[in-house]
Amino acid sequence: MPTTTTRLRVRYAETDQMGVAYYANYLVWFEVARTDFLRHFGWTYREMEAGGVFLPVIEAHCEYRRPARYDDELVVETSGRLVSKVRLTFEYVVTMAGQTDVVASGYTAHAATDPAGKPCRLPARVHEVFA
Amino acid sequence: MPTTTTRLRVRYAETDQMGVAYYANYLVWFEVARTDFLRHFGWTYREMEAGGVFLPVIEAHCEYRRPARYDDELVVETSGRLVSKVRLTFEYVVTMAGQTDVVASGYTAHAATDPAGKPCRLPARVHEVFA
Amino acid sequence: MPTTTTRLRVRYAETDQMGVAYYANYLVWFEVARTDFLRHFGWTYREMEAGGVFLPVIEAHCEYRRPARYDDELVVETSGRLVSKVRLTFEYVVTMAGQTDVVASGYTAHAATDPAGKPCRLPARVHEVFA
Amino acid sequence: MPTTTTRLRVRYAETDQMGVAYYANYLVWFEVARTDFLRHFGWTYREMEAGGVFLPVIEAHCEYRRPARYDDELVVETSGRLVSKVRLTFEYVVTMAGQTDVVASGYTAHAATDPAGKPCRLPARVHEVFA
Repeated sequence: MPTTTTRLRVRYAETDQMGVAYYANYLVWFEVARTDFLRHFGWTYREMEAGGVFLPVIEAHCEYRRPARYDDELVVETSGRLVSKVRLTFEYVVTMAGQTDVVASGYTAHAATDPAGKPCRLPARVHEVFA
Repeated sequence: MPTTTTRLRVRYAETDQMGVAYYANYLVWFEVARTDFLRHFGWTYREMEAGGVFLPVIEAHCEYRRPARYDDELVVETSGRLVSKVRLTFEYVVTMAGQTDVVASGYTAHAATDPAGKPCRLPARVHEVFA
Repeated sequence: MPTTTTRLRVRYAETDQMGVAYYANYLVWFEVARTDFLRHFGWTYREMEAGGVFLPVIEAHCEYRRPARYDDELVVETSGRLVSKVRLTFEYVVTMAGQTDVVASGYTAHAATDPAGKPCRLPARVHEVFA
Repeated sequence: MPTTTTRLRVRYAETDQMGVAYYANYLVWFEVARTDFLRHFGWTYREMEAGGVFLPVIEAHCEYRRPARYDDELVVETSGRLVSKVRLTFEYVVTMAGQTDVVASGYTAHAATDPAGKPCRLPARVHEVFA
């Protein structure tokens, strides 16, 4: 499975009064990570949308193992998998930079749609990445 | 299962360039809904934290069926379930106000901890709600 | 000056590790408050955008006096003022529900544009509100 | 005036249905930029809070000139200025990477407080940066 790595730092805005990163932000980091994944394979999600193909999320899941705190540097390992001609799944594993313990892990499932929201086939370039 | 209802309106801030509510915001709405759930049963998550018991999320899941748009009024139906003496699960169903079609549904699982992050028993008041 | 009132509760997601509402969220609350302002006068910002007029923010300002905390109920008093045929300003005063001490106050300035981002005149209905 | 530079990319989560970065996110980017500013001068805001000094925002201002879009790479130039023994101001200029046109500019004012929220003197290390 093609895999890429994204690094990011926990922002103050992303913490909550428990002193840790608020749980919804992991889904934002997953989005940053899959943008990097696509960019790594030679194009961008921005170009894909410009080309009329959208990738809305149809399912998201996250398991939280250890808290992440303000200013922590995190590593998100992202791998992608073609589920069908119209569906794509990304898996994410978040660790603290320089450590192996898992902070969180999860996945998102996506269905390709046209600008009107109708299902459509993923572009050939996406198929090539997973070939 | 005890169940409560929360109403909220999609904020402009919560939309993205696809013209729909960004997927991570559903987890924020789930949080608003479970705060209401606890309040409905006579106390608040705020009091619970003041009493030294925290409810960090250990797992979150959401399935997205239909897009929600800016200014849409949404209804979140929330039900809670005691999984063990230290674990609690909430389930959420999001619909458009006045409609029955599901916009999204999901759950969050929580483990009670003390201020140091160590697992602890849920307060007796929580047990009573689910008795 | 036409004035409206909006009530909202501080979400857990909106707190930070200082235990108070994170400062950028006040701009989100200002947006919720001006959406209510427009709705109060018989139509909605949603309709305005559907009609091809956008109101991007060209300036935002906020002064923070007292912290707001999780689950606090806040009141935002919003007043609007027409600055020219294309410009509009909103002023906001945030207080804790049932109290008069100011939590924060600020303003946003807006310029009407068409869907392509070119300046355009505010709709007649907007002018009527401020007549 | 000491000045530092921060680079960041607009996240999908940060866009709104107008297709541009939502205005409140600029305050988040300002926070990321001042965290970098402090780090650049040999310590971190995280250490400062651990040492019992907090820097809550007492005023924030932003002027928006040109829209920023998803995946745009932005540069934030940040300069800091000591206003008194307890007050600090940061100024920010946001441009598109590789361009000189200003996307947005603004400032934040901060007052040093102890963990109880009482005003306190800025640490000697902060004074040295601005000496």
